[in-house]
Amino acid sequence: MTFERLKGFRDMFPEDAEPKFYILNLADKVASSFGFHRIDMPSLESLDLYKLKSGEELVSQTFSFVDKGGREVTMIPEATPSVVRMLTSRKDLPRPVKWYCYPKLWRYEEPQSGRLREHIQFNADIFGPNTPDTDAEIIGLAATILDKIGLSGEYTLRINHRRLMEALLLGMGAEDAMGCFGVIDKFKKISREEFTSQLLEKGFPKDRIADLYWLMENPGSQSGLLQHMEKVMKVDQNLVEIIGRLEETLSLAGKYTSSDIVLDFSVVRGISYYTGIVFEAFDSRGEFRSILGGGRYDNLSKLMSDQDIAAVGFGMGDVVLEMLAKRSGAWNIPDRPRSFSICVASDRAREYSLELSRKIREAGYTASMDISRRSLSAQLKNASIQGLDYAIIMGDREMEKGVVTIRDLETGEQETVPMDSVLEKIGNQKEKSE
Amino acid sequence: MTFERLKGFRDMFPEDAEPKFYILNLADKVASSFGFHRIDMPSLESLDLYKLKSGEELVSQTFSFVDKGGREVTMIPEATPSVVRMLTSRKDLPRPVKWYCYPKLWRYEEPQSGRLREHIQFNADIFGPNTPDTDAEIIGLAATILDKIGLSGEYTLRINHRRLMEALLLGMGAEDAMGCFGVIDKFKKISREEFTSQLLEKGFPKDRIADLYWLMENPGSQSGLLQHMEKVMKVDQNLVEIIGRLEETLSLAGKYTSSDIVLDFSVVRGISYYTGIVFEAFDSRGEFRSILGGGRYDNLSKLMSDQDIAAVGFGMGDVVLEMLAKRSGAWNIPDRPRSFSICVASDRAREYSLELSRKIREAGYTASMDISRRSLSAQLKNASIQGLDYAIIMGDREMEKGVVTIRDLETGEQETVPMDSVLEKIGNQKEKSE
Repeated sequence: MTFERLKGFRDMFPEDAEPKFYILNLADKVASSFGFHRIDMPSLESLDLYKLKSGEELVSQTFSFVDKGGREVTMIPEATPSVVRMLTSRKDLPRPVKWYCYPKLWRYEEPQSGRLREHIQFNADIFGPNTPDTDAEIIGLAATILDKIGLSGEYTLRINHRRLMEALLLGMGAEDAMGCFGVIDKFKKISREEFTSQLLEKGFPKDRIADLYWLMENPGSQSGLLQHMEKVMKVDQNLVEIIGRLEETLSLAGKYTSSDIVLDFSVVRGISYYTGIVFEAFDSRGEFRSILGGGRYDNLSKLMSDQDIAAVGFGMGDVVLEMLAKRSGAWNIPDRPRSFSICVASDRAREYSLELSRKIREAGYTASMDISRRSLSAQLKNASIQGLDYAIIMGDREMEKGVVTIRDLETGEQETVPMDSVLEKIGNQKEKSE
Repeated sequence: MTFERLKGFRDMFPEDAEPKFYILNLADKVASSFGFHRIDMPSLESLDLYKLKSGEELVSQTFSFVDKGGREVTMIPEATPSVVRMLTSRKDLPRPVKWYCYPKLWRYEEPQSGRLREHIQFNADIFGPNTPDTDAEIIGLAATILDKIGLSGEYTLRINHRRLMEALLLGMGAEDAMGCFGVIDKFKKISREEFTSQLLEKGFPKDRIADLYWLMENPGSQSGLLQHMEKVMKVDQNLVEIIGRLEETLSLAGKYTSSDIVLDFSVVRGISYYTGIVFEAFDSRGEFRSILGGGRYDNLSKLMSDQDIAAVGFGMGDVVLEMLAKRSGAWNIPDRPRSFSICVASDRAREYSLELSRKIREAGYTASMDISRRSLSAQLKNASIQGLDYAIIMGDREMEKGVVTIRDLETGEQETVPMDSVLEKIGNQKEKSE
């Protein structure tokens, strides 16, 4: 009888789990250094909470079920509804509320490259202020996390604005802006002909398609965006304000990172939910799905409670992040403590070896005790296979002389050290290696 | 419309989430310093995998359901079956395999003090060797984690042995040892009369109940256990060996911790699953459920695969741990980095303030930017409410002079520092406070 794991789920063995959690821990530390605070939410929620934001069609894509108490529940497919439920349950919190979390999320979808049925998502949100500074800070946090992981230069942040897109489409005479968003979302994947015919189907004016296409291909940059857009459309006061806010946001966001931040009118992200800035990070070579995505969503708290709280946030899944970190060489743990295999070849040494192990650990190192009672040569072989840095050997000969042998498992070099100076010696070895 | 979280689930706000994850991170570091490696498993598994170890009656206590693909699945109620599934799927791993993880687990039970429907459980296991050293290391790891959290002296490790109990009961003439385990499990909660009558119901010999009761009340200590047991029963060679192994294990385990380790024959832990040592940690005042529990379970891999791999491990839930840490004053984060509120009272200062924030974060501190564009007094008030340590203030006056004001938010003391020496100054302040 053997058992298989479920389709779309992962077994994370140490070679994957340790860099994965190391990277999530880096993201955690960055968020904390920005003054964000960590929260955590239930993995299971009322299905109603998730229907509210994402609608009925979500249900077919969730691990939802009726629990033994007759409740319609779902394993959470995203974090935001739970985060906003938690936020609105606490009227005492001073604003801004800056929260992060990295729960597991589940979606009942066909597994594919970069998308699994279970993943870990790093989320961060700022509730309260609706300022360009707030938008810039959430983008800046996302960028700083990627930079800290070692992905500077490996990604581009692509920015759009929900109200700018709406003004642009309506200004050009679109009747069904939402329908057009669906076409714009596919801009990079379809031909100009398909783009044109699909827009026409949505009732977009035929004589403005060339202008829209030009703007999609040439989104402009943060300086002079107004003049840029005026080339193809009439810019009214509403649009002037949106562009001003967007430019300021981009300018502030640029202070957080030296990575590329560009305008991209095809970044749509189910835009009906968002109310302002939207953004995604893509790997610079364009090989993967988006690394992270987010935006401003000021209306969700109103939908879920009697409170009206401005909100901006992003979510970053661990699957694409792992692919990118592996490609770019960032999939490792640079500052792992030195590790020692404590090899015991004499019963008389056992008690001392346990004391020594404890002291080595208290000094901040890893000490892996011989617990198998194998031969010394088997212990040394195993220590090498397990990737430990040093072996500390104590046999009868050593016990008689009151010494231990410290062997560098990489070079094979070894030396004999008095028992009471082992920690001093180890300290030196650590410094030597740094 | 408002939404409630589900019964038995928790919203973890920062005041709870941050100490919780800090403590789990300490446990993580301790396990790593012992040479254990972190893994992670799916949150959802085939129900069959969990029926195998725990039987059909488990099903009523799980969040199990039929997924949209028709599979009988369960949100995992414990970690061990998944860990052993992962282990047996990898025949290439050198032994010992020493793994830890801290997944969320779910049980459909009536919530009560110390037991919720969702909790986080820290698990550690050693696969491969079956030696007293291995048993001692897993007990030692559990104790070192509790000690590192700051719970030394707050808990007692209570040890028993499955085969010793079996030999003891059979040696005294019990016919239904498993039935007797069920009574022994309740030893501390029921009266002597109830203990007696329930044992009689299980067919335990009437004339040996006094001896068993004496041994339950007086389990002896690790030295002289053999002579102690001989007072009330005939000790055969089998029992001599078990006692020898147990004594050696206890002696080795004592090298890991100065906390109490005692024998306790009422620690039964659904003993049918275990094959050797079993143990639990209880708070010394006896106010809570057990903090952690574990033991040797050499037969599970055989049940689940064609492999026969010795195993010992423990699990520690986060609910009782939190209660104990709160009671004992260990519920805090002692080494949080200093935090700075960057207060901007001049538009001219905004760009510089973002650069300064970035440098402060890179130096290892927390820098929380003003993103609300409120008045300086509102910013300072908020910084105090949020519990930040210092405010760095830059207004028009400061910008003109090329300085910033650094205010200690606890004492109210402040001083003016040239812009280009802020980091130097902060470094000094950190040292000063340590």
